[in-house]
Amino acid sequence: MRAAIMRNREMITDEIATPAPGPGEVLVKTLACGICGSDLHAFEHFDAFTSQEEGFANNLAADRDLVMGHEFCAEILEFGPGDAPAGRLASGTRVCSMPMLIRNAAGVPVGYSNDVPGGYGEQMLLNEMLLLPVPNGLPDDHAALTEPMAVGLHAVEMAKLTPDDVPLVIGCGPVGLAVIASLKLKGAGPIIAADYSPARRTLAETMGADIVIDPAVNSPYDSWREAAGASAQAQRADVNPLTGERLLPPGVYFECVGVPGVIDQMMVGAERGCRFVVVGVCMESDPIRPLLAIGKELALQFVLGYTPEEFALTLHHIAEGRIPVAPLITGHVGVEGVAQAFRDLKNPEAHAKIVVEPWRS
Amino acid sequence: MRAAIMRNREMITDEIATPAPGPGEVLVKTLACGICGSDLHAFEHFDAFTSQEEGFANNLAADRDLVMGHEFCAEILEFGPGDAPAGRLASGTRVCSMPMLIRNAAGVPVGYSNDVPGGYGEQMLLNEMLLLPVPNGLPDDHAALTEPMAVGLHAVEMAKLTPDDVPLVIGCGPVGLAVIASLKLKGAGPIIAADYSPARRTLAETMGADIVIDPAVNSPYDSWREAAGASAQAQRADVNPLTGERLLPPGVYFECVGVPGVIDQMMVGAERGCRFVVVGVCMESDPIRPLLAIGKELALQFVLGYTPEEFALTLHHIAEGRIPVAPLITGHVGVEGVAQAFRDLKNPEAHAKIVVEPWRS
Repeated sequence: MRAAIMRNREMITDEIATPAPGPGEVLVKTLACGICGSDLHAFEHFDAFTSQEEGFANNLAADRDLVMGHEFCAEILEFGPGDAPAGRLASGTRVCSMPMLIRNAAGVPVGYSNDVPGGYGEQMLLNEMLLLPVPNGLPDDHAALTEPMAVGLHAVEMAKLTPDDVPLVIGCGPVGLAVIASLKLKGAGPIIAADYSPARRTLAETMGADIVIDPAVNSPYDSWREAAGASAQAQRADVNPLTGERLLPPGVYFECVGVPGVIDQMMVGAERGCRFVVVGVCMESDPIRPLLAIGKELALQFVLGYTPEEFALTLHHIAEGRIPVAPLITGHVGVEGVAQAFRDLKNPEAHAKIVVEPWRS
Repeated sequence: MRAAIMRNREMITDEIATPAPGPGEVLVKTLACGICGSDLHAFEHFDAFTSQEEGFANNLAADRDLVMGHEFCAEILEFGPGDAPAGRLASGTRVCSMPMLIRNAAGVPVGYSNDVPGGYGEQMLLNEMLLLPVPNGLPDDHAALTEPMAVGLHAVEMAKLTPDDVPLVIGCGPVGLAVIASLKLKGAGPIIAADYSPARRTLAETMGADIVIDPAVNSPYDSWREAAGASAQAQRADVNPLTGERLLPPGVYFECVGVPGVIDQMMVGAERGCRFVVVGVCMESDPIRPLLAIGKELALQFVLGYTPEEFALTLHHIAEGRIPVAPLITGHVGVEGVAQAFRDLKNPEAHAKIVVEPWRS
């Protein structure tokens, strides 16, 4: 089968062996697979991404082939040996799955494994028990975005929002946009969102942001203060016992950028008592000034991934039209197009999410 | 009056004007005042401590006198002008107060102000409405430790402990010891505590730690895992659905060191899902690796100070013998002894808390 392969730290296309499903496993045809920012990170910061201590994809070897791709929709081709479980899906059924293959009571991350291919190849292995049929005739490329949208849903769940919170989203790449969609779904608002890119700000509005900020023109933190002060939540906020002034409602700031310095910048801008949810994946060492966070009693929740329940719920929300994904998709490529797509995705004006369709000639 | 004064970045002793109480204010005689690690920080890292952006004591001027001291017990000498409020305390009453003077609807931090002296001077100004009488004939130096012990109580409150949590205290200086005392009071345990100093480890046991670790010999994180796995909480913990192994109960790690690198080290050692409460005040830039925290979905709560209710409650706990403070007090000095005490406090084998008694000759 054909696949886009990271080999010797380059992205190339080649033929590789089609994997054979073991007991409980299913061979599937990859119909669509989104390119994730984490894949760009893994490609460019391979050593940090795979470093043992950080325990994240730490079994990956630089000298073995890697077929990435963990945001996919696929079609059942063939079941592994063993009896069929009750309620087995028919061959040909379109499915989504968490990108995790469970073997020998351990999880193998599909898309970050040297042993099994991810969605940048024509075929993959998945666990039969993790398959979720794609409902409502949802297009393949929309269903493929279940995974990144689940990341946003999980981040918003981890924020443990109260009706008093006013959210601020820093960075409107796919992660920030997924967070905005889930905030909107939760009824949180006003949603303030900031990004330097005009195209990303337009997408943020499409996904549900109420106020979008260009940080080159206005401080996102001042804009948040203004919006929070004018919000319905502000009417219920406590009063400063010394000054009699009404306090601002609690802020929940989502870090969706993932480059060094952003957390510190947010600490400078934050109002006292804010909670940060760190969703952006910063692969490098990141200096913070604890004194900033101490003086304001800030809280940081770092988050990763989603639960199986959140993943299934996200697919359901997309199928029901409650989480929009169509606006995010800005391109489709075959396996030969992956290397160029990795380069193209660096331009936020041109692209948000490029979907790989390995069956394309 | 005499005071130990930070003048031109040196600690000297001199006579300064006795302050005059305004309306609502009280002139008090300082009976006892603890030397806080923050005072050593302020003395040695004055520019960071007073930097505008970090909003912490940012009104302090390097070219004006500073009389520090914010952990005190005092005696009422004289009331400011105006009618006596109902229930006025008698002159001569021994009192504690949060180290905050409210003037013109703004808080002036007593001990970190160029305008009013702190407890390293013979007399201070306090707000009448913030005075708490010292109960039960509690000795002056014990009552003075209300402030640092309230820091520990607040940190434990901010941890929002559940009955499942197993705490780990990194660093057993006065802050860590205060945290241990409040954990014990809450019934949390086993309390695992780590410090390089044998004297500090002995104090940690005295304050209520169940297991004390020398990080030079054993990893505090491995020791925590062992203790958490053997705890009563472990019997109630969830099971890993893949391996069938019992998960560890949730960890709540208190950072009570406040030097760069400790948070990162804790992130390396932490179990998945741990919460950190950052109580140590790191005055410098501190590199962390967000990837460590993301992979484990760690949460960090930075904390500062205490509420008025927590302060009053702490005094009550000390007076009732529920928070031990006597073991912490390792020395007493007059104002002339402050400069040497600042140096002596760098040796954890010799000292934990030195109390200034400005009336001493």
